[in-house]
Amino acid sequence: MSNKIVTFGEVIMRLSPPGNRTMKQSHEMEFFFGGTELNVASSLATMGCDVRHVSSISDDFVGESAVSFIKSLGIDTTFINKNEHPLGLYFLEVGSSVRASRIAYNRLNGSFANIKSEEIDWEKVFEGCRYFHWTGISPGISESAYETLKEGLRTARELGIEVTTDPAYRSNLWKYGKNGNEVLKELVSYSTIFIGGVNEINEILGTQFSSDKEGFMEACKELKQQIPSIHKIFDKIRIGVTASSQQTQGRALVDDHYFETEVLEVNPVVDRIGTGDAFAAGLIYGLINFDDEKALKFANAACAIKHTILGDINYSSAEDILEVMNGNSGGRIKR
Amino acid sequence: MSNKIVTFGEVIMRLSPPGNRTMKQSHEMEFFFGGTELNVASSLATMGCDVRHVSSISDDFVGESAVSFIKSLGIDTTFINKNEHPLGLYFLEVGSSVRASRIAYNRLNGSFANIKSEEIDWEKVFEGCRYFHWTGISPGISESAYETLKEGLRTARELGIEVTTDPAYRSNLWKYGKNGNEVLKELVSYSTIFIGGVNEINEILGTQFSSDKEGFMEACKELKQQIPSIHKIFDKIRIGVTASSQQTQGRALVDDHYFETEVLEVNPVVDRIGTGDAFAAGLIYGLINFDDEKALKFANAACAIKHTILGDINYSSAEDILEVMNGNSGGRIKR
Amino acid sequence: MSNKIVTFGEVIMRLSPPGNRTMKQSHEMEFFFGGTELNVASSLATMGCDVRHVSSISDDFVGESAVSFIKSLGIDTTFINKNEHPLGLYFLEVGSSVRASRIAYNRLNGSFANIKSEEIDWEKVFEGCRYFHWTGISPGISESAYETLKEGLRTARELGIEVTTDPAYRSNLWKYGKNGNEVLKELVSYSTIFIGGVNEINEILGTQFSSDKEGFMEACKELKQQIPSIHKIFDKIRIGVTASSQQTQGRALVDDHYFETEVLEVNPVVDRIGTGDAFAAGLIYGLINFDDEKALKFANAACAIKHTILGDINYSSAEDILEVMNGNSGGRIKR
Amino acid sequence: MSNKIVTFGEVIMRLSPPGNRTMKQSHEMEFFFGGTELNVASSLATMGCDVRHVSSISDDFVGESAVSFIKSLGIDTTFINKNEHPLGLYFLEVGSSVRASRIAYNRLNGSFANIKSEEIDWEKVFEGCRYFHWTGISPGISESAYETLKEGLRTARELGIEVTTDPAYRSNLWKYGKNGNEVLKELVSYSTIFIGGVNEINEILGTQFSSDKEGFMEACKELKQQIPSIHKIFDKIRIGVTASSQQTQGRALVDDHYFETEVLEVNPVVDRIGTGDAFAAGLIYGLINFDDEKALKFANAACAIKHTILGDINYSSAEDILEVMNGNSGGRIKR
Amino acid sequence: MSNKIVTFGEVIMRLSPPGNRTMKQSHEMEFFFGGTELNVASSLATMGCDVRHVSSISDDFVGESAVSFIKSLGIDTTFINKNEHPLGLYFLEVGSSVRASRIAYNRLNGSFANIKSEEIDWEKVFEGCRYFHWTGISPGISESAYETLKEGLRTARELGIEVTTDPAYRSNLWKYGKNGNEVLKELVSYSTIFIGGVNEINEILGTQFSSDKEGFMEACKELKQQIPSIHKIFDKIRIGVTASSQQTQGRALVDDHYFETEVLEVNPVVDRIGTGDAFAAGLIYGLINFDDEKALKFANAACAIKHTILGDINYSSAEDILEVMNGNSGGRIKR
Amino acid sequence: MSNKIVTFGEVIMRLSPPGNRTMKQSHEMEFFFGGTELNVASSLATMGCDVRHVSSISDDFVGESAVSFIKSLGIDTTFINKNEHPLGLYFLEVGSSVRASRIAYNRLNGSFANIKSEEIDWEKVFEGCRYFHWTGISPGISESAYETLKEGLRTARELGIEVTTDPAYRSNLWKYGKNGNEVLKELVSYSTIFIGGVNEINEILGTQFSSDKEGFMEACKELKQQIPSIHKIFDKIRIGVTASSQQTQGRALVDDHYFETEVLEVNPVVDRIGTGDAFAAGLIYGLINFDDEKALKFANAACAIKHTILGDINYSSAEDILEVMNGNSGGRIKR
Repeated sequence: MSNKIVTFGEVIMRLSPPGNRTMKQSHEMEFFFGGTELNVASSLATMGCDVRHVSSISDDFVGESAVSFIKSLGIDTTFINKNEHPLGLYFLEVGSSVRASRIAYNRLNGSFANIKSEEIDWEKVFEGCRYFHWTGISPGISESAYETLKEGLRTARELGIEVTTDPAYRSNLWKYGKNGNEVLKELVSYSTIFIGGVNEINEILGTQFSSDKEGFMEACKELKQQIPSIHKIFDKIRIGVTASSQQTQGRALVDDHYFETEVLEVNPVVDRIGTGDAFAAGLIYGLINFDDEKALKFANAACAIKHTILGDINYSSAEDILEVMNGNSGGRIKR
Repeated sequence: MSNKIVTFGEVIMRLSPPGNRTMKQSHEMEFFFGGTELNVASSLATMGCDVRHVSSISDDFVGESAVSFIKSLGIDTTFINKNEHPLGLYFLEVGSSVRASRIAYNRLNGSFANIKSEEIDWEKVFEGCRYFHWTGISPGISESAYETLKEGLRTARELGIEVTTDPAYRSNLWKYGKNGNEVLKELVSYSTIFIGGVNEINEILGTQFSSDKEGFMEACKELKQQIPSIHKIFDKIRIGVTASSQQTQGRALVDDHYFETEVLEVNPVVDRIGTGDAFAAGLIYGLINFDDEKALKFANAACAIKHTILGDINYSSAEDILEVMNGNSGGRIKR
Repeated sequence: MSNKIVTFGEVIMRLSPPGNRTMKQSHEMEFFFGGTELNVASSLATMGCDVRHVSSISDDFVGESAVSFIKSLGIDTTFINKNEHPLGLYFLEVGSSVRASRIAYNRLNGSFANIKSEEIDWEKVFEGCRYFHWTGISPGISESAYETLKEGLRTARELGIEVTTDPAYRSNLWKYGKNGNEVLKELVSYSTIFIGGVNEINEILGTQFSSDKEGFMEACKELKQQIPSIHKIFDKIRIGVTASSQQTQGRALVDDHYFETEVLEVNPVVDRIGTGDAFAAGLIYGLINFDDEKALKFANAACAIKHTILGDINYSSAEDILEVMNGNSGGRIKR
Repeated sequence: MSNKIVTFGEVIMRLSPPGNRTMKQSHEMEFFFGGTELNVASSLATMGCDVRHVSSISDDFVGESAVSFIKSLGIDTTFINKNEHPLGLYFLEVGSSVRASRIAYNRLNGSFANIKSEEIDWEKVFEGCRYFHWTGISPGISESAYETLKEGLRTARELGIEVTTDPAYRSNLWKYGKNGNEVLKELVSYSTIFIGGVNEINEILGTQFSSDKEGFMEACKELKQQIPSIHKIFDKIRIGVTASSQQTQGRALVDDHYFETEVLEVNPVVDRIGTGDAFAAGLIYGLINFDDEKALKFANAACAIKHTILGDINYSSAEDILEVMNGNSGGRIKR
Repeated sequence: MSNKIVTFGEVIMRLSPPGNRTMKQSHEMEFFFGGTELNVASSLATMGCDVRHVSSISDDFVGESAVSFIKSLGIDTTFINKNEHPLGLYFLEVGSSVRASRIAYNRLNGSFANIKSEEIDWEKVFEGCRYFHWTGISPGISESAYETLKEGLRTARELGIEVTTDPAYRSNLWKYGKNGNEVLKELVSYSTIFIGGVNEINEILGTQFSSDKEGFMEACKELKQQIPSIHKIFDKIRIGVTASSQQTQGRALVDDHYFETEVLEVNPVVDRIGTGDAFAAGLIYGLINFDDEKALKFANAACAIKHTILGDINYSSAEDILEVMNGNSGGRIKR
Repeated sequence: MSNKIVTFGEVIMRLSPPGNRTMKQSHEMEFFFGGTELNVASSLATMGCDVRHVSSISDDFVGESAVSFIKSLGIDTTFINKNEHPLGLYFLEVGSSVRASRIAYNRLNGSFANIKSEEIDWEKVFEGCRYFHWTGISPGISESAYETLKEGLRTARELGIEVTTDPAYRSNLWKYGKNGNEVLKELVSYSTIFIGGVNEINEILGTQFSSDKEGFMEACKELKQQIPSIHKIFDKIRIGVTASSQQTQGRALVDDHYFETEVLEVNPVVDRIGTGDAFAAGLIYGLINFDDEKALKFANAACAIKHTILGDINYSSAEDILEVMNGNSGGRIKR
């Protein structure tokens, strides 16, 4: 069986003043293409996986540039459609030390928000596919994105595809009338692998579990009880010490077995965006290639090394990540 | 009587790859704030006029940067409101020689499109004001922008304010259901000074005048007959020889008197955007300070020199423009 | 009563190779406008205060750019005059870790050094004003700067305005013949609020107090005895651990009551210049809006966050500073 | 039958100081991937053709970046091998007006020079292929590049594939011992379509034809007599008026029928490199989609528009080129 | 006899916003070291001559960078002293087409203005020297610069050294109390070769000759009559068609023999600064290596090619200049 | 006796994406000239020593730029020859924190690899020279580099010159057929001062000493026994904590006397390349000016401060290094 992975989600452009400048101090901005699910796809493709991304982009030179970028990563762009709406984007002012980073979005009326469910032939999309990855961002953008995603999830489960879920709840989305928590619970029900922790479970189930180990284990059990299709739960813990220093750790519950990784420290942080996506991609890669415990370790190392790379994408090879996992501190030059 | 000028229109951000790069070849973009009516305000403020701009911007750090920029020009920003929608923007790939420039917009759901008529107290806006400048871009963006503008025009005329009109018809606007030509005719009826030529008149009146001198004179007469409040018509002719070389000329009909300027040539062109706005600003400045013929010459020189300045804004002083008007070819350094 | 604040001092341009480059390694320099008193004005204006800056700048496009920048911050520039001398400037090579930063000045014959006392109508300047802020830099630049300042201080006290003093003694100034320590003592006598510590008091009074808590308290008492108009003393302690890591703390003596803040750590440091000015601005904002202890805490947090912002100016809002004051470590993104 | 095109040649990196700077004046260089045959592939892929490039690159992160770039264009990279030699590169100082551009090469011991004939399974390469494009650069780099190419040409002809030839003779190549003119004649013998003019024919055949129309026709006849497999000859004439201004024209002899295009002028020139390759790509696209005369016109327009694009690659769509061909001067913005 | 050339004059830093930006639109500036006499020295050193520059620079890292740059050109810096005053500098906004360039100076109190005559041991400076080049800029900066130069001129003539003079009269200098025209006449009296035309002669002698050929010849005769040590007069004519297009021509009177060069056109102009200095350097090189007529042609070609090079320095080799002189239009790439 | 120092080795160009970008994320690269022995020369020249570098560079504008750079440092370039091979270069992706830096080389067929022993007149080179510095990089590049170096070493010892050796063994060199360890042992036999530690001694002698203090002392004794001309051994210990944080320490054995320095910490690291060369240069400077123990301390401080400077070269003055040696932490600005 093929290991092809399908991802679905917005292709979004990030615009950011160079270095630590604020926008008022700048006349130019660096730009990057990303998007939480595309970031997962990109990292998987960089590690050599066969990946297909499904989305809808703008039918202009901005969209063309985005596709060109996605192709450069080796991702299959066959199912990226175009429409007359502009590509979603956001502005980022990068913080430092005690100054937090700030984001301003422009995505709610973009080309992805205007995706149409009927444009996607999900059966064709999933041909030869083993994993389908989605996040809670997509259904928060628009009703049609929600519907398109639901149809994809339904089809995936019908076809017996493993569904990995990052149920990122964001309160600044969900402007189109639906209740985010309810919709997320509905969609998470299609999942088989849950990538999230106590906060996410509390939001979906309306529970109040604590975030310590015991709370985590109880929350996981409750989730598995309510949604039995979920057989594995992996949690990423990123501790933002400051805007310039971060710690990452993974923990998991698989078949009532709890395990966790050591804490990795990153200082300084080059870029925080996409570190959760690097974790998810590392995890999926790990699940395909390693056992669950090593997969979690690999995911945590992937999350850590992403903090050192500018932009949304984790450009690390599996070898690079294994080195970090095995304790390489970065102090020697590779010649 | 004060010479304060009020302008109304979108504050829009331009994003452009540096130099002649295409977007695919770039990792960064230069950005500029502008907008056709703000450009007019900016040029007038740079020449020392008292200017107030009315608009609605995003309530985030992007909007804050825009306001900071507008303040730097010395423009009164008291009547620039904020709302929760993103600032409008567009991407520009700058052409060269036989390669034309390209623009992709993201403005139809932005903060200006969501301006509310009731937010603007037009009587307060116009206190001490002598000129009100608007263009046909604003009513094409959204119904509420159209309604806000109409209320402003109605008030301006009630207060006996001179209304200068740049009836820029753009077919890629007008997506919200109204017929652009009809709306423009309605709004132009509030004008006293018309800055446009045969194409604009044909679009508004549905006529077919030719663009030569005779056609221009007939078109003007027809316009003045149908809209008697218009007492002066000034036309800017910009001939785009290539993307790198342009010619500009002005012609006018005031009280049945036709006059025109000489042709000015600009080679190379640094930036084409905002050259029409530089003409309008030069004209308003000229009408305040000179007679009509000198005003037209000044406007034409302002249009020419703007081609040599990066961004949307004409940063030239009145002295700079007078030098071009008086034949200075730019060949000597000012020490 | 209005809370308008008046500041007086040089507008100076900073020129610095990008990043950590030395000048020999560069072909370009980033530039910023600042100046110790203007930095205070800028921070106060950013926090929403009504601020007026008094200075003299060059009558050329460099001076025009400076004014445009000052306007962008919302500062009243009515009393910034122009003369035919060049704008003061300095070059900065930014250090890192064990390598200290270096500055080379070009200011002693500039437009501010050539300010004329008779150009400033101080009574008009202080209309509606509640605070006047000055520093010991200005009188060190030239005799006419000293005289202009003294006239301002005399008028301020006559009008009952609160005078905040940062008595920065710099041995590389004071080239025009006067004894810096004596002049500073004379000018400090016009103060009501003293922003400085043991070193500054020792320099002004010729004393030898130690820099520990006891020494600080004794020094303050001696200062208040010799200059009874001073009723509050606030001290900023910045500990430069390395060029890349700094600690800040505030302490104060108000009416024989000693209090101090906790130590805030900043790592990495983006920019050290203007952190003392951020403290002074935070303090003045705090004195207007909070009690003295909270004002000191706010000032210390303002000083800390300024270390994370490029350039001379603290672009933080009061909300941003309150967050740091309340323990936000910068580790989460604000969306 | 498929229209797949195969190209073979070096992937080379261009390093160039920004703008018109000389290397002595720079601390940074812009880089681009290209190579005469890859440029042809890139332009064809941009126009929507199915293209496969055959080459050998370095097995390091430089080579990885090159492949990523080639993928971004949509070119099939299956037959791009890797070896332990560094990627070929060249430095370019861009001239202006009377100052000519200068190039310094570093390619003769690179990864392409070390390509091995046995690494390429040409039969597999040509599956479904209709056109094979090569140039005289490749055999000048090394003996193994020559042998690999010859094997490709032999196979192509065996399979009845159309072979387009750009016989670029460069005297600064051919350092490995073979006589360039002789080798070129041998390899050109495998051609069916010759893209070159009098100079190229004279070099290959050792003749002395003049470069006017008569000379061109006689030279073509002589070439077709000596190499009967050549049935079409297309010549690009680029007149370098100065480093900043160029003229392009095409002429051809097909079955004793001579035709030529009008002269197109480009001023200013953004980038001269790759303009001949743009001609070749335009020609191949034209031969697939149009008749021979329109193909030549299209090729000439492609050559002209390439002068306005930075880097080696012609990023123009077929629509862009058709516009230039149909007389669009570039003077209007495409919104 | 050696051909060593000594130059004397200010080392000045140019600061300029990148491209065609105005200062208001910039956050960074490109910088270059130059100065009219140093530009001559630099061009001569680049062409392989043995050159020594005499000056006084700032004793800080700015001065160190300047010396490092001068050394990079191969110029002998033994007689460049240091003092505690800042290095002179100027800001340049680069114009385009009809917009003229603008300069703002900061040099009148700098390290060169504070040079001391007694610091220079002119006899040692001139050891082995054949040419001494100076311009009318130096004595306009300060009295001590004037005195230092006069002592140098006196010594040079005593030693029988050829003195080349560029009597650039600038009305924005001469602020220290002396009459520029009178001083220039005094200093020009030490010359043997005069590089200037009718304007310069009129300014020095107070005459009113016309600028046509006859006027030029009469002016030259008058100059030679009044200052008999002058035996050769070479004039550079630069016609600034626009800020982007220039024409250059040379004419001369040597021993009553008039000759002139053809007109060279440069379009576009990359940088106008230092083109007169390139002429002077070309002339001195020509006088050393060629006959007078060829020297003038060479000087004119040097002047033309300098327009295509960014910064103050002509980086062209003698071979580059000979190519332009011999009609190479720059249209072909040198590989 | 003069203190002139001669260095011999490749001049190599470093090309690196800006900041922490990977090459895939870049369109431009910063470049620097360096090379391990040139770095030593550069640091010594910056500290005021009289230095001559011997090498072979490319005869093109790349080589010209390199020479210009070397001259800017004040190094004597008389014995830098040119040949028709390209300048060696390498690409560097700069890591951060847990991500290690990566290098890709292009040097084995460059101009230095093609140096010819007979081109160098070593007796002339060493005129007035007291120190000769070489490293184990040079003989690893090519056989002719090895032979040229050996001839230099032989001559140096004949002339009684002190030979300082950095026996850097690199496994990615030595492709031309010789055994690196054997050759190094042969060449080290010409040394008098050995700059290396246990690893280097083990590689050269084929021993297995441990890296603790005892191992170091035993290894040194063994080395001195086998190569009695070595009278001093200095070891640099750089501990790469992460790619962003490093520690440095020095230890030495001179006449059976062991001594070591304290550990210096650098965080963040701006640039790791050339820190070993900074140590060597600091040591040589120290041996000339101080006693052995102070020389080692100075070398260690030089190594530490180099980590804060971009590029290969340590631009620090002796005063800068002494400050670090004496405990200055970099936390105060030098005005």
